[in-house]
Amino acid sequence: MIGRLFRVSLFGESHGRGVGVLIEGCPPGLRITEDYLAGELARRRPGARYTSPRREEDRPEILSGVFRGRTTGAPIVVFIANRDIDSSFYEEIRHTPRPSHADYAARVKYWGFNDYRGGGIFSGRITAGLVAAGAVAKALLVTHGIRIYSYITRIGPVEARVQAQDTEDFRRRIEESPVRCPDPEASNLMEEQLKRVLEEGDSLGGIVETTVFNLPVGLGDPPIDTLDGDLAKALFVIPGLKAVEFGAGFRLASARGSEVNDPWILRDGRLATETNNSGGINGGISNGMPLVFRVAFKPTSTIRKPQKTVDLRTGRPATIRGKGRHDPCIAVRAVPIVEAVTSIVLADHLLRWKSWETLRSRILGEE
Amino acid sequence: MIGRLFRVSLFGESHGRGVGVLIEGCPPGLRITEDYLAGELARRRPGARYTSPRREEDRPEILSGVFRGRTTGAPIVVFIANRDIDSSFYEEIRHTPRPSHADYAARVKYWGFNDYRGGGIFSGRITAGLVAAGAVAKALLVTHGIRIYSYITRIGPVEARVQAQDTEDFRRRIEESPVRCPDPEASNLMEEQLKRVLEEGDSLGGIVETTVFNLPVGLGDPPIDTLDGDLAKALFVIPGLKAVEFGAGFRLASARGSEVNDPWILRDGRLATETNNSGGINGGISNGMPLVFRVAFKPTSTIRKPQKTVDLRTGRPATIRGKGRHDPCIAVRAVPIVEAVTSIVLADHLLRWKSWETLRSRILGEE
Amino acid sequence: MIGRLFRVSLFGESHGRGVGVLIEGCPPGLRITEDYLAGELARRRPGARYTSPRREEDRPEILSGVFRGRTTGAPIVVFIANRDIDSSFYEEIRHTPRPSHADYAARVKYWGFNDYRGGGIFSGRITAGLVAAGAVAKALLVTHGIRIYSYITRIGPVEARVQAQDTEDFRRRIEESPVRCPDPEASNLMEEQLKRVLEEGDSLGGIVETTVFNLPVGLGDPPIDTLDGDLAKALFVIPGLKAVEFGAGFRLASARGSEVNDPWILRDGRLATETNNSGGINGGISNGMPLVFRVAFKPTSTIRKPQKTVDLRTGRPATIRGKGRHDPCIAVRAVPIVEAVTSIVLADHLLRWKSWETLRSRILGEE
Amino acid sequence: MIGRLFRVSLFGESHGRGVGVLIEGCPPGLRITEDYLAGELARRRPGARYTSPRREEDRPEILSGVFRGRTTGAPIVVFIANRDIDSSFYEEIRHTPRPSHADYAARVKYWGFNDYRGGGIFSGRITAGLVAAGAVAKALLVTHGIRIYSYITRIGPVEARVQAQDTEDFRRRIEESPVRCPDPEASNLMEEQLKRVLEEGDSLGGIVETTVFNLPVGLGDPPIDTLDGDLAKALFVIPGLKAVEFGAGFRLASARGSEVNDPWILRDGRLATETNNSGGINGGISNGMPLVFRVAFKPTSTIRKPQKTVDLRTGRPATIRGKGRHDPCIAVRAVPIVEAVTSIVLADHLLRWKSWETLRSRILGEE
Repeated sequence: MIGRLFRVSLFGESHGRGVGVLIEGCPPGLRITEDYLAGELARRRPGARYTSPRREEDRPEILSGVFRGRTTGAPIVVFIANRDIDSSFYEEIRHTPRPSHADYAARVKYWGFNDYRGGGIFSGRITAGLVAAGAVAKALLVTHGIRIYSYITRIGPVEARVQAQDTEDFRRRIEESPVRCPDPEASNLMEEQLKRVLEEGDSLGGIVETTVFNLPVGLGDPPIDTLDGDLAKALFVIPGLKAVEFGAGFRLASARGSEVNDPWILRDGRLATETNNSGGINGGISNGMPLVFRVAFKPTSTIRKPQKTVDLRTGRPATIRGKGRHDPCIAVRAVPIVEAVTSIVLADHLLRWKSWETLRSRILGEE
Repeated sequence: MIGRLFRVSLFGESHGRGVGVLIEGCPPGLRITEDYLAGELARRRPGARYTSPRREEDRPEILSGVFRGRTTGAPIVVFIANRDIDSSFYEEIRHTPRPSHADYAARVKYWGFNDYRGGGIFSGRITAGLVAAGAVAKALLVTHGIRIYSYITRIGPVEARVQAQDTEDFRRRIEESPVRCPDPEASNLMEEQLKRVLEEGDSLGGIVETTVFNLPVGLGDPPIDTLDGDLAKALFVIPGLKAVEFGAGFRLASARGSEVNDPWILRDGRLATETNNSGGINGGISNGMPLVFRVAFKPTSTIRKPQKTVDLRTGRPATIRGKGRHDPCIAVRAVPIVEAVTSIVLADHLLRWKSWETLRSRILGEE
Repeated sequence: MIGRLFRVSLFGESHGRGVGVLIEGCPPGLRITEDYLAGELARRRPGARYTSPRREEDRPEILSGVFRGRTTGAPIVVFIANRDIDSSFYEEIRHTPRPSHADYAARVKYWGFNDYRGGGIFSGRITAGLVAAGAVAKALLVTHGIRIYSYITRIGPVEARVQAQDTEDFRRRIEESPVRCPDPEASNLMEEQLKRVLEEGDSLGGIVETTVFNLPVGLGDPPIDTLDGDLAKALFVIPGLKAVEFGAGFRLASARGSEVNDPWILRDGRLATETNNSGGINGGISNGMPLVFRVAFKPTSTIRKPQKTVDLRTGRPATIRGKGRHDPCIAVRAVPIVEAVTSIVLADHLLRWKSWETLRSRILGEE
Repeated sequence: MIGRLFRVSLFGESHGRGVGVLIEGCPPGLRITEDYLAGELARRRPGARYTSPRREEDRPEILSGVFRGRTTGAPIVVFIANRDIDSSFYEEIRHTPRPSHADYAARVKYWGFNDYRGGGIFSGRITAGLVAAGAVAKALLVTHGIRIYSYITRIGPVEARVQAQDTEDFRRRIEESPVRCPDPEASNLMEEQLKRVLEEGDSLGGIVETTVFNLPVGLGDPPIDTLDGDLAKALFVIPGLKAVEFGAGFRLASARGSEVNDPWILRDGRLATETNNSGGINGGISNGMPLVFRVAFKPTSTIRKPQKTVDLRTGRPATIRGKGRHDPCIAVRAVPIVEAVTSIVLADHLLRWKSWETLRSRILGEE
């Protein structure tokens, strides 16, 4: 379960009946329809140019918790049935674990009972549930004017130069890029790279950056439930994600305090920091500056190039290679998922924060 | 609360009565004494050469849960009283929030009621509780032969070359380095850097790497409670930590799948991977290879150099500077804390894993 | 969510798409099929003589977590689609809250957005999910020989005399009684009572007793997660349940210690108590004696007799009466649900207990 | 842990260093002092006429979370050191488990490592932490005008006639009764009973009723986290509590719907029910009527009369008898503890409820 008040649980397998999500603690009255969810899911749907060719329609069904187009306050379940499934490949490779895949760890953990077809619960497909939950969370966040932008800043060797802005234009630049990179020049180079590795049967890693504008000061519950910690935990639910950094992140390790501390200033009558190397979080609490973090995705593990493995039946070395077209860079596809996970965690912390908000006057008014 | 079965909660403030930890769900029979805890706490104690000079004895008191030198199965509380406290500086800076500190965010979140002295709950001092809990967790992990090594791999501009080994010699090299870096040459350069920034009233960031040997295959509960996600969340409890990466981490973002996928091989009759770019985790589950991750710490925020801020009473720009000697690099001091947090999370996941372990024969034995 | 390791969440509404359950933390390898679940659900299905006439087939669909007839270790979702729905009555009574129903409280809590049709989430129908989860839990419990019997001991004025036994005969006597009461004489009287109130358009309360045999000593995690407390909380999920007592329960309040304390004796070489007024629990932990508790259900709130209410649109007194046939005693129908909830909580505590079980030799073996 | 937002954890043993409580999630600004807590603890302190003679001062120490007399928003720990301890009796009876005590269950569960002295964590003394947490919770509840009254309605054979009222007079009548029973006649009879059993070396059970006035409509989070279920779970933390019923409770099992359904009426312009057999809760949610519930306590298990047990070393029958004066009725002493537990659970649900409260206008205001 992700979250304490706005709570999200995932279920489903890649080649089973479908995938889905349970959302508990969502307030009533939010406008949610299957069409709205379908639109959000379309953003992550395979079929885009640089994502894998599985062509599902991803028709979300709302099984509970929404009545006449509004959330009811009861648990919401969104289910997305699977279609277009060919599991024959997985029978073939069942005993030859794929490099850098969960095949082997899952086989041991679940005593061989796990549904291995299509990667089972380890498939990127399970993230459809995160996107659906993120869409519900977003409907809550917009009531407080909180806006989230996720976008690509690196694919393999190509690094983009991006300065996030809270504008429709910035949003449009992300959406228009086939790789979701708002730097048009880098976007072109990334496309070229992806074409090349696709031809070569290889894959590339990438970095997704997220910037959140208009977050209130005070989200996060230290000492344990820090905002950055809760985000990090939830982000690691996304398959292939191997690292997360806030603000200047790893770069801070090489720096001096005098260089990277964020001086406080007044800007438009509000306290702000001159730089934002802290990424909008101090001591686990949002500080009023934009929340900024980056996550790194490893290259897609399944590639057409032959890879070394072991046949678990014979104990002998074996070779494995992915079949058909594959997704050359999961980072691209992960962009809306990172955005969704961010929405979920922020919706949860917004509700926590609201629980104190109106107490202040009551508590202080006593005196 | 960190953990589902082995559960850890922190309390206390830097300049209040003391700091401490509550540990719930710890099994009975583990040998724990105040002397043992004091020894573990000594490793993080201020007073070492490159950590701040506050000279507390950190005498841990076990308030509950231990009887005749053994854990009882009941909740354990360890309390470490504060001594040696001068809070006058904090009165002075109360209205001038320190750059990159939680001063401002906390003031807003807690409506000004937070104990601001010494950073309150945001002080590094609160990590004493983590170290105490980590010591208890470690007593559990050793019963399963799990061994954890944390060490410095970078301080500011100096990067070490470290190949972790599961040997006493490696442990000794870490402990003997004043900066906890097992690469002696880098250790010397790091010392020089620290001397310099200390003289200049500045500070440096750093990286702590952790390697865990002998972890069973199967720890981690995807899809939500992944091993990496649970580690990440708990690590962000440590003040000043801004990033975490597993295995090759951010480097994977620049790479091709064919370069960084970890081929499966047989080594000494057991399945292993040729490389370990995954850092011992696939799909959120330990895969039997060493668990490897790195965390980045920002430079100490409090420095003697003057820094820009705003006087919250007047709304005017102000200057602030730390007084007296300060800790030039929190990463150094964080080494045993990272190890402790790792112990806590692994103890929790070990217990979860144990809950299934003996079921296998029962469930399969039915047939 | 019920449970810490074996975790159960409910969703769905009476007149929406359907109802269901999410089960997380279930170990792999348990044999679960839709037919098995359908059989368990049939036991609570409306259509039996003294339960309401809604004739649904309750075809459970396993949406995830089961593969080739076995649990996989992944989250399990069971969904039971709704059919046979006529919501017109609920439109009619929408603004006239039913006495002793959640209509009004829900309307205020959910700002009028709740799905009021058929009682929404407050309908007894939501318990189908509990029964499905209980069936999975039971498959785990049988691997440890734990056997649960729930049965009626009172309906309205008729009290049965029951001495629970761990025998097939006792199970058969429960199943053969149309009101699930193993005392044949009382069963007949109860039937008569039910016939009468049904004719009169009224309803009756009742008591369900549960006895669990062969529970290991040591289940329960005081001080907070006591076995009785966790059972109580989960039992209150069942609509209409208003009270729970363990062992001699309320009768203990009138007694002297010398009369009701349970003396320890040796029985068949094992420690046992002469009486079982404690109901198998001391200090929140199972003590090896049969677990015994009773729960009280209020009479069905919806009756054909006219009842007083207020029209919320006009603020004027109004009269409301249930239409068609209704279920004269929810206690009868609750019998398999109480059994299911008991299974869920015991499965969770069994897993917790297992997490320590194999540690003992490791921890003590060190010395 | 009790609670989701206002969270309470207990620690400590009867004859160890002390007992205490950790409170997480408490909002800042509440006035809490050690004197205030000491006053609340005095109400449960041994030394009153019909409670056991252990004469501790119960000086609570606030170890964290309070600064200058106000809660800070950080975790609060209250610790009450033990004094006046003679454990010799417990050495004597260590191997002869007391009837209806946790001695045996704990010995098995904790492999003999539990602190058995004075009952360890199973002692009534651990409830001091509940009272301290309840006092903090109460400071929050009064800001919303919520008032809680707990009182005795039965001791052994004597049943009181009580009609709870939200008045200072009713509070005074409770406090003035040595047995906390607001019915003066019954109170006298109860005193007589207690005198008699005390002389005879025996003990009595009892019932504590609680009535809460001015609770908002809408507290409780069904389907799982019902208000009654959360109360029940928390109440079972209190040693010796064996049953709980809401509203008319078990009496509902014998009744007809037409007799006990609560008709809706308008009273002083607000919706109310004519009777309150539901005890203020419908469908797990507070309905605006007074919350009413009763809990049954078994007679004190430790009595001076000889009782049968088994010597676990020899496996032979043995006799055990309590020494010195004992507490003849734990129900009396439990009165303020039941009140404290109620406060804790209501504070938690109040905070949950507040998290939605201000959303309504934001969500609906959009349109």
